[in-house]
Amino acid sequence: MATIALHLSANTSVTLADQLYSYFKEEISCGNLHKHEKLPSKRTMASQLACSINTVQAAYNQLVDEGYLIAREKSGYYVAELEGIQHLGSIHQEESIQLPKKEHYRYHFSYQGVDYDSFPFSVWRKMAKEVIQAEDKELLSSGDPKGHQGLRTSIARYLQYSRGVNCSSEQIIISSGTEFLMQLLIQLLDADSLYAIENPGYEKFSLLFKSNRVPCIPIPLDAQGLQLEALEKSKATVVCVSPSHQFPTGCIMPVSRRLQLLGWASEQRERYIVEDDYDSEFRYLGKPIPSLQGLDQQGRVIYLGAFSKSLSPALRISYMVLPNQLIRRYEKNLQFYICPVPTVEQKILQIFIDRGHFERHLNRMRNLYKQKREALVEALHDKLPNVEIEGDSAGLHFIIHVHNGMDETALVAAARNQMVQVYGLSRYYSSLPQETSDGTLLLGFATLRFEEIDDAVSHLKKAWCSEEKTRS
Amino acid sequence: MATIALHLSANTSVTLADQLYSYFKEEISCGNLHKHEKLPSKRTMASQLACSINTVQAAYNQLVDEGYLIAREKSGYYVAELEGIQHLGSIHQEESIQLPKKEHYRYHFSYQGVDYDSFPFSVWRKMAKEVIQAEDKELLSSGDPKGHQGLRTSIARYLQYSRGVNCSSEQIIISSGTEFLMQLLIQLLDADSLYAIENPGYEKFSLLFKSNRVPCIPIPLDAQGLQLEALEKSKATVVCVSPSHQFPTGCIMPVSRRLQLLGWASEQRERYIVEDDYDSEFRYLGKPIPSLQGLDQQGRVIYLGAFSKSLSPALRISYMVLPNQLIRRYEKNLQFYICPVPTVEQKILQIFIDRGHFERHLNRMRNLYKQKREALVEALHDKLPNVEIEGDSAGLHFIIHVHNGMDETALVAAARNQMVQVYGLSRYYSSLPQETSDGTLLLGFATLRFEEIDDAVSHLKKAWCSEEKTRS
Repeated sequence: MATIALHLSANTSVTLADQLYSYFKEEISCGNLHKHEKLPSKRTMASQLACSINTVQAAYNQLVDEGYLIAREKSGYYVAELEGIQHLGSIHQEESIQLPKKEHYRYHFSYQGVDYDSFPFSVWRKMAKEVIQAEDKELLSSGDPKGHQGLRTSIARYLQYSRGVNCSSEQIIISSGTEFLMQLLIQLLDADSLYAIENPGYEKFSLLFKSNRVPCIPIPLDAQGLQLEALEKSKATVVCVSPSHQFPTGCIMPVSRRLQLLGWASEQRERYIVEDDYDSEFRYLGKPIPSLQGLDQQGRVIYLGAFSKSLSPALRISYMVLPNQLIRRYEKNLQFYICPVPTVEQKILQIFIDRGHFERHLNRMRNLYKQKREALVEALHDKLPNVEIEGDSAGLHFIIHVHNGMDETALVAAARNQMVQVYGLSRYYSSLPQETSDGTLLLGFATLRFEEIDDAVSHLKKAWCSEEKTRS
Repeated sequence: MATIALHLSANTSVTLADQLYSYFKEEISCGNLHKHEKLPSKRTMASQLACSINTVQAAYNQLVDEGYLIAREKSGYYVAELEGIQHLGSIHQEESIQLPKKEHYRYHFSYQGVDYDSFPFSVWRKMAKEVIQAEDKELLSSGDPKGHQGLRTSIARYLQYSRGVNCSSEQIIISSGTEFLMQLLIQLLDADSLYAIENPGYEKFSLLFKSNRVPCIPIPLDAQGLQLEALEKSKATVVCVSPSHQFPTGCIMPVSRRLQLLGWASEQRERYIVEDDYDSEFRYLGKPIPSLQGLDQQGRVIYLGAFSKSLSPALRISYMVLPNQLIRRYEKNLQFYICPVPTVEQKILQIFIDRGHFERHLNRMRNLYKQKREALVEALHDKLPNVEIEGDSAGLHFIIHVHNGMDETALVAAARNQMVQVYGLSRYYSSLPQETSDGTLLLGFATLRFEEIDDAVSHLKKAWCSEEKTRS
């Protein structure tokens, strides 16, 4: 081979061996060095480049390890045969991705998220410090695949006294988000399961089943929740419901419908009810509605809960309670999934619950959200008399019917023009009913600041009242 | 109805209204109160129980909300019709779950986990404090579904300079564990994709495909890694490989085989290579082997990485780099999956990387693991001369062949009798080859303490050398 057109430089952070390695890799990749070509001996190369033999040795070794060179004992170093190496010369620059621009709003009537000013950061920080200070081995191993035993015990106790859920800590699986729990369930339940979802309902369920290539059937609701006759006709085997505060309508499934649903499940093997208890901590009149799971004597209810509404969606901690026969199946088939929640965080949450901070936080938030809800209801009554509010006095959102002749799309667009985000009810329908309800929207109030509520509703008034528009 | 057999007590933490509510709920549930039965008026009830009308009102309201009572205007409260209520009487106690007892070992040659004494707890604690102190809104919202933008930028930069990966932060998806990333990939790639995995290989891949009901084909290896001819014959469209340090054999795929693999992928649309780069940070002779992704000009490599080996498996942070066409598809179809890693933790890791702590930690750990590896190799040479070591000087485990006439099962059992855990190679085969290698085991050394290594190997000697056994 010709002389090496390389000048090693000592005035850089790259070692001499690395410079040599990069040079040869490039020469081989672009075809300047041909296959089977012999490289100069280490000694020759070292003298030519005025560097040590060790430097050359290090570069050659790395090239051999990566397969660019072949070392033949007592013979020397040869360029390896690399099929398809020509490709490497022509770097194909892919265009950078153009993301759609985010829309900017002044006010979001969001139904996701929590009050931004009330998270107990100082308590959380103290506990984080305490947990990390302990420096135990647990913080460095992946731990129990179902989740940290201590946290599962605390959740089981909490569910028993506050939600009337019958369970032991062994039945609890901790994960990060309803989506991830549902993915586990799809794998856990029979391959030929047919899923039913509420229509309207939580929009992620239909997306999730679709992307998991699993069929799912939307079931219409009446004033008591999911219609049993439609469920029976559907041939579904697993049904997802939110009985304590239906999403998005806010209706409570009465005990009679709950018993019918349990009866439906017990009629056949492998029929299950997935109870999504997403925001039941917040009820402003009376006690919280007890869970459906607590009524179940046959082990047919899978209970889903989360800390997204009660603490923060950024924590990414959710859990499910499986009936005993499904827990056994889980331990047999799905134990290889490591719990996705970091151990540190599970331990912080455990002591946060055990020392009563969680209950205190819930009480404080219930009071705050109650006041926000009342302020919003009052502002709507005052400024928008043609708005009718629906949904039990619970949760972090409600439904409104706007009787001003505008349809849903027009209402959402008019609000957007005033930089206010509201949500049309149709987005929660996986299959739209024949008679579409005119002008029905969802308003969430958790993330709005108390002092913003009045102005946010004034903006809605500007958007939806034509007289007001003309005047302004 | 008969008189109420209830005596309200003020000497308990349960409110009077709650006592009344629980009493009626129980009476209705067990059938003592019949459907359509009228309840005493609020006034009668209050005078009978010597409590306020408000107390009765609260109890009745809650019972109406839950559907046990029906309120008829200007008439009163009636027991609701509850089909199937009889079930509730007979509480069916399910047996508690018997879990298999955990085996206790003195020494684990585990290939999962990290050195327990070296995690930079004090730095991590400081940064946790800093991040939580900031109290920003981000810590309370679920954030970018692909993961925190700041952390994705830091990872992209790290991958570029240390692993030769070509990527922008937009191409990165952060998740918690290879299992979760693979579940996303299965949904992202074509429904009729056929997956190929290394045999032997990472045991979770076959479990994962099985539980996701997706077919997967084991492909045999030779000294250069995955056999291309077998892959071509298999009709697979997606192949999972660990080219930089094959798991479990430890072999490095040379650049010629890498180019062939890239050539295979580019032959047809929707062919992809999943590169599992699980422990490439640790190489003790020479530089780390650059990624396969860095050679890819056609956007056919999906790169998987994690912080499980480099920091801690308990963090549950992993990521993948998608080619541009797949990122666009991801954003269209799977953006509804919220990133499962808590925002706090993502921000801590970001500043940990940005301030150079990650690099320093890696350098320190590389040095420590090198010493552990050398100590283990030396102890094996000294005490067990009939043991042969295989695998490049890299990673946190290697393979040994024990030539003492015992087969794998006997070796593992004998080690267990000495309270030492080792792993037989056959557990990594999703389909066992005809000629099973006799006595091949995997030894991991990351979690063993430096000072334990010698004694752990002495225990293996007791287990595997019959002379020693007789003497002891």
